Amino acid sequence: MLDLCKYIIGVDLGGTNLKAGIVGRDGNILYQFSIKTNAHAESQVISHQICELIAGIIKNVRIEKSDILGIGLGSPGLIDKKGETILFSPNLSKWRDIPIKKIISDTFGLPCILENDANAAAWGEKWVGAGKDVSSLVMLTLGTGIGGGIILDNKLWRGINNTAGEIGHMSIQTDGPLCNCGNYGCIEVYASAPGMVRRFRELLESGKASLLKKDEEITAKRINEAAVQGDGASLSIIEETGRYLGIAIVNIIHILNPGAVVLSGGLIGSGELLMRPVKRTIEERVLKASYKDTKILFSQLGTDAGIIGAAGCLLKELEISA
Amino acid sequence: MLDLCKYIIGVDLGGTNLKAGIVGRDGNILYQFSIKTNAHAESQVISHQICELIAGIIKNVRIEKSDILGIGLGSPGLIDKKGETILFSPNLSKWRDIPIKKIISDTFGLPCILENDANAAAWGEKWVGAGKDVSSLVMLTLGTGIGGGIILDNKLWRGINNTAGEIGHMSIQTDGPLCNCGNYGCIEVYASAPGMVRRFRELLESGKASLLKKDEEITAKRINEAAVQGDGASLSIIEETGRYLGIAIVNIIHILNPGAVVLSGGLIGSGELLMRPVKRTIEERVLKASYKDTKILFSQLGTDAGIIGAAGCLLKELEISA
Repeated sequence: MLDLCKYIIGVDLGGTNLKAGIVGRDGNILYQFSIKTNAHAESQVISHQICELIAGIIKNVRIEKSDILGIGLGSPGLIDKKGETILFSPNLSKWRDIPIKKIISDTFGLPCILENDANAAAWGEKWVGAGKDVSSLVMLTLGTGIGGGIILDNKLWRGINNTAGEIGHMSIQTDGPLCNCGNYGCIEVYASAPGMVRRFRELLESGKASLLKKDEEITAKRINEAAVQGDGASLSIIEETGRYLGIAIVNIIHILNPGAVVLSGGLIGSGELLMRPVKRTIEERVLKASYKDTKILFSQLGTDAGIIGAAGCLLKELEISA
Repeated sequence: MLDLCKYIIGVDLGGTNLKAGIVGRDGNILYQFSIKTNAHAESQVISHQICELIAGIIKNVRIEKSDILGIGLGSPGLIDKKGETILFSPNLSKWRDIPIKKIISDTFGLPCILENDANAAAWGEKWVGAGKDVSSLVMLTLGTGIGGGIILDNKLWRGINNTAGEIGHMSIQTDGPLCNCGNYGCIEVYASAPGMVRRFRELLESGKASLLKKDEEITAKRINEAAVQGDGASLSIIEETGRYLGIAIVNIIHILNPGAVVLSGGLIGSGELLMRPVKRTIEERVLKASYKDTKILFSQLGTDAGIIGAAGCLLKELEISA
C-alpha cells in the first residue's frame, strides 16, 4: 500500500499556460500555480520552465520531498510509445524529442509519468470527476481542437502507438470541409471553437440578424454569451454544434458502448443550450440497446482536470507497479 | 494448466446455417457439421436443434465427453450482459430469452460460453487467424449487414451492455440515406451487400453500361464476379465500396489506433480490387502517426471463423477462470 498521507505533483503543459499543483491522494488540489508557457522556445527552455515551476511549488508549499509520491506531466501532442518524450506538438513549435520524463525524474529524484493531455484530463474525470461512478468513459475536450480520451475497464486505452482517442478527427461527413489534419468532414471542423465561428460567420453572410456584428471579433465565447442573451443566430449555431456532437457521440456509443461520454472544454460554457440538442440527436439516431445505460455528462473538474488527471495517472502507474 | 489433449466444441448459430465443429487446442477444426437453422421456430425448437447437433457430433467423432473442455456458442443479435441468453436477434424471429447457455451446459454437463457472432469471429482471427501477431484488432464482417468485433490488449471489448462493436452503424455521412437502424449514412448503408446492390442499380439507372442487366437478379457476388471479368460498372462500385470502407476505417484508426483492421465476409471475394481503394483512401485521409503500425488484412479463417472463434472464446474464459 502507498502511504495515504503523501502528495502528487500534477503538471499541465499547455500551449498557452503551464500549470502545476500539489494534489492529495483524494484528488483535491491543495495548491496550484500557473505561468505562461514559453511555447515557441527550444525544448530545453521549456523543460527548464517545467522544472523551475515544480521546484517553486515544492518550495512555496514547504512540503518535504519525501512526502511527494511523484510527478505527473500532461502534454499536448504525440507522446512516444514508451511515454518518455513528446514526439511532436503543434503548440510547441520548436520542441524536439528530449527525454523529458527522465529529466524531471532525475531533477527531483522522483518517479514521473508523461501522458497526453486529453488522456490525463479523461483520467482525472474518471478518478474524481464526472466519471467516477463508471468503469469506462470517453471524454471529448471541445476547444480550439477537439481532443479525446478513452477509458475502458478502468484503464486508459492508448492504442499501439499512443495515438488512440483522436476523436476530433472522426469524419462524420465524407465530403465535408477539409480539416487541418488532411481528412474531410471531421467533427473538429464543425464543433470546435473555430468551427463554430466559421459557421456563425457563414450564417451572418447569409443575412441572418445577430447581436454580434460581422466586423467585430467573433469567438466561441462571444457566441455562447450572445446565445444566453437570446440571440437567435448564436442559439442556432449552438443548436447545430450540439447536433454535430450528438452524431459523433452516436458513433462512439455504437463502437464502444461506454458507461459515459464526458464533454469538457470552453465550449460547454453554454450548458444546457448545448446539452439539449446533443441528447436529442443521440436519442433520434442511436441503437436503444447501446445507449440505455450510457450517461452524457459535463466535466466536473473544468480546467483543473489536467493537473488532477496528470497526478492521478502517476498514482495509477505506481499502484499498478506496486 | 488445462489438459493440452482436450477439445472444444464451437457452434456458429446463423440465420441460415447452424454449424458446429470439434476444435483442437491449436485452433484447427477436426470435424464439422452443418444443418439449416430453423430460424423462424420458437426458441425451444432452436435450442433443441443446437443440442441435437452437438450430441450428433460428439457421437460421430466418438470422443469421450471427458475429452471435451466445453462448448462455445456464437450467436447473432444482442446477448445479455451476463452472457446467458440471446435477448433479440433479427434473424431468429420468434426467439424469446431462454437461458440457452444454461440449457447447453446442463444438457452436456460441460462449461458453455455464449458470445455475439461478430465478437466470436474476431476472437478466432486473433487466436489463430489474420490477427494472431497483434494484441489489438478491429474486425469488420461485410455481408447483409456489417458486423464488428473489437479486441484490445488481447481481450474482447464488449462494452457495458455487451453491445460494443456496432461499427456498421457508424455514420460517415450525416445527411446520408436512412439505415435500417434508424440512423443516417451508416457505413452499412453504403458498404454492405444490399448497399452495393443499391448503388449498382442507381448506376445502371443513370445509364452506365454493364455486363449485368437491370432485369436480372443482381447480388454482391454477381457484381464481384463481373468486376473480375472487367465490367466497368462493377469495378466502379467495388472501388466506391472500398472508398467508403477506407473512410470508416480511418475513423476506427483515429479512435482506437489498433494493431490491425481485419476485413471478412462475402464481400471480400473481390480481393485486391477492394483492398486497393481501401488502402488508398486510408493513406489519403489518415493521421500518419496513428496508422504507421496498423495493418489492414483480410480474414484468414473465412466462414470457419465463427466455429473456431466460439471455441476460442470458451478456451479464453476457462484460462481466465483457471
